[in-house]
Amino acid sequence: MIAGQDTSIVTNHHEAALTQARELRQLARVGKFKGPTSGFAPGLAQGNVVILPKSWADDFLLFCQQNPIACPLLAVSAPGKPILDALGEDIDIRTDVPEYRVFRHGELSEETSDITDLWRTDLVTFVLGCSFSFEDSLMRAGLSLRNIDCNANVSMYRTNIATNPSQYFSGDMVVSMRPFKPADAIRAVQITTRYPKSHGAPIHLGYPEMIGIKDLSKPDFGDPVPINDDEIPVFWACGVTPQLAIANACPPIAITHSPGKMLVTDVSNDQLSIL
Amino acid sequence: MIAGQDTSIVTNHHEAALTQARELRQLARVGKFKGPTSGFAPGLAQGNVVILPKSWADDFLLFCQQNPIACPLLAVSAPGKPILDALGEDIDIRTDVPEYRVFRHGELSEETSDITDLWRTDLVTFVLGCSFSFEDSLMRAGLSLRNIDCNANVSMYRTNIATNPSQYFSGDMVVSMRPFKPADAIRAVQITTRYPKSHGAPIHLGYPEMIGIKDLSKPDFGDPVPINDDEIPVFWACGVTPQLAIANACPPIAITHSPGKMLVTDVSNDQLSIL
Repeated sequence: MIAGQDTSIVTNHHEAALTQARELRQLARVGKFKGPTSGFAPGLAQGNVVILPKSWADDFLLFCQQNPIACPLLAVSAPGKPILDALGEDIDIRTDVPEYRVFRHGELSEETSDITDLWRTDLVTFVLGCSFSFEDSLMRAGLSLRNIDCNANVSMYRTNIATNPSQYFSGDMVVSMRPFKPADAIRAVQITTRYPKSHGAPIHLGYPEMIGIKDLSKPDFGDPVPINDDEIPVFWACGVTPQLAIANACPPIAITHSPGKMLVTDVSNDQLSIL
Repeated sequence: MIAGQDTSIVTNHHEAALTQARELRQLARVGKFKGPTSGFAPGLAQGNVVILPKSWADDFLLFCQQNPIACPLLAVSAPGKPILDALGEDIDIRTDVPEYRVFRHGELSEETSDITDLWRTDLVTFVLGCSFSFEDSLMRAGLSLRNIDCNANVSMYRTNIATNPSQYFSGDMVVSMRPFKPADAIRAVQITTRYPKSHGAPIHLGYPEMIGIKDLSKPDFGDPVPINDDEIPVFWACGVTPQLAIANACPPIAITHSPGKMLVTDVSNDQLSIL
């Protein structure tokens, strides 16, 4: 099958991922899937979720616009509208994320798998791209991801890199870290450059202390992973950044996904890629 | 001049570089320019030159094909033909390089500014891309190049990375090194990826010892440059690699440019870039 190319393998792979994404959202909807989404529906974009009242949402939109690497917008809903047609079939943002965090006045108040009771006609949903999306591309290029090899959540750290503040939202950038051998680090820069909607290229590599990280073995979020002597830590902007900005802004209510438990969309990473 | 764009600045810049390239080759032809070519004719490609008898050239072509990152081919001449129309107006490879090195049986035997007396009807000329070409793009992107800031030749090192051997040609890869702050190193990966004919992306960054370099302050070719504590050494494959392969192959005669004194062409780097 050289001439006339058999494309059924690719098609079947995409169809299988789509089916899994939709099943996962249905299971989340009825409270039967509450776990991390890494590794599910490979090739499809996963999203960080931020839900804010309209009176705070306009300023958060400005914050995202001013910090596009940490906060790459995939979709913004109309106020009160829980449907996100642009990101997939029949997505109801009130139920289809495996687990939510509810923040009141900047403080985490509860975790829940359903926010239907909290829904209001003024709530605006933001979905931001996630680095899980480019992990699939890195693995297809033959790179090993330590967090996946260790079956661990990716290591995430607060940095001393200030975001560009909007009126209410501000704070330091959070980064995710993956260790690579030097040649793989170079390859990872090339590959992730193609995915600006998944935080794009790394923002730093090498010296953690230069960006305010004192101890790589003690991440602020996620799990620590071993780093070998011949590896370089590579740092990408992270979608947890807005959670810090929300804590600083103290809106009366804000709802996000729980870290690692993302909205799984029907949109393929290839659709969102450049180059 | 927003609508209707004034392109005269770009055109004039390109025209000035073309004029300079042609003048430089004319001065080299009459023995009045024998110096390094870095910084001349900005935006135009400069080339490493290798001239071999036809009986060795076929195998060297295979060596280049098997080592495209170290030996990116810009042009190969017909045997005995000293003209290189594809690379510029009226290029005579016997006179237009500022300085040549003549190797006999693998040993450097002389340096000269004119090889007309050595010309033979069986000599084949290879022109290989050079990292000087992407230095212009790095600077236009706002990156500082230590070798240029220090008015020094770039630092070059023998590595322990074996090239893919052909029948006669083999040897370890030579690399050039430029130190950058981490964010600039990432940017340099992105920019140089666009220039596969100038060695493309780095092949290594970070730990010199991993590629067999013991002391960065003692380059094997070129000049040492200071490296600051917050900088990472970034390594690109280098067009000096074939000179080592020639030393190993010991052909009865081989002629190259002298390091840093390149063939300046009329071809713009933008013409040779991808992405």
